[in-house]
Amino acid sequence: MSHQELEEGIGLDLDFTKLRKVANCGADVLPAVAQDARTGEVLIVGYANELALETARETGMATFWSTSRDELWIKGTTSGDYLQLEEIRVNCEQNSILYRVVPAGKGACHTKNREGVARSGCYYRRLRDDGSLEFIDPEQV
Amino acid sequence: MSHQELEEGIGLDLDFTKLRKVANCGADVLPAVAQDARTGEVLIVGYANELALETARETGMATFWSTSRDELWIKGTTSGDYLQLEEIRVNCEQNSILYRVVPAGKGACHTKNREGVARSGCYYRRLRDDGSLEFIDPEQV
Repeated sequence: MSHQELEEGIGLDLDFTKLRKVANCGADVLPAVAQDARTGEVLIVGYANELALETARETGMATFWSTSRDELWIKGTTSGDYLQLEEIRVNCEQNSILYRVVPAGKGACHTKNREGVARSGCYYRRLRDDGSLEFIDPEQV
Repeated sequence: MSHQELEEGIGLDLDFTKLRKVANCGADVLPAVAQDARTGEVLIVGYANELALETARETGMATFWSTSRDELWIKGTTSGDYLQLEEIRVNCEQNSILYRVVPAGKGACHTKNREGVARSGCYYRRLRDDGSLEFIDPEQV
């Protein structure tokens, strides 16, 4: 499936090998979920190593470790769509973190809707009973 | 740090090796976030393989792959605290899923507050500026 189909289509093609790739990236990371502190929307799931967490605390911006580029990724550095940190939460077993954020730009997702506006978050499609995807909000198509 | 301190204490001791362990569990999994569809609370981050996703769709209950026990894990099977699925969302790159759920029991977390009640979700502590943790809700201590 092409990149375009993967992100803008309605065909399901989940990459179950994702975490194997993540583990091979060279950095020790845990899942880092970013959630809009005002609306509750789950915006993005990324990965954080110790440096990303430190950088998040220093800059006040949600920061991940890009496991594909293998580099520090302060969300918004290229797009301007920073995610300002309200707080960082830690789960019971201390093996994942939750960034509670206020988006400073248009959206947290790198994809854009048909009007060219960045989507607020990455979870803009739901799984239908027939196994295909559908866009949750018609405006986000 | 003991299990008790990890879950009930205020000392930070994040396990950054988590995803390396996950990748070694033998199953191909991706992150699966469960969110309360009514309150927006992020309840738990687990992992799902193809079987877990299929089972979730068939049973209507949030289902994970337990990467520590290496077995299918329909959340609530032992505790009764099932997470009834409202919908399953998929992210832009199709490498993570979001379970939008309505908790059928008391809580989604396996930990309990001092009154012996399961906590609603796993993210009951926030990171303080001094690097220690604090409980977000005094009632959840």
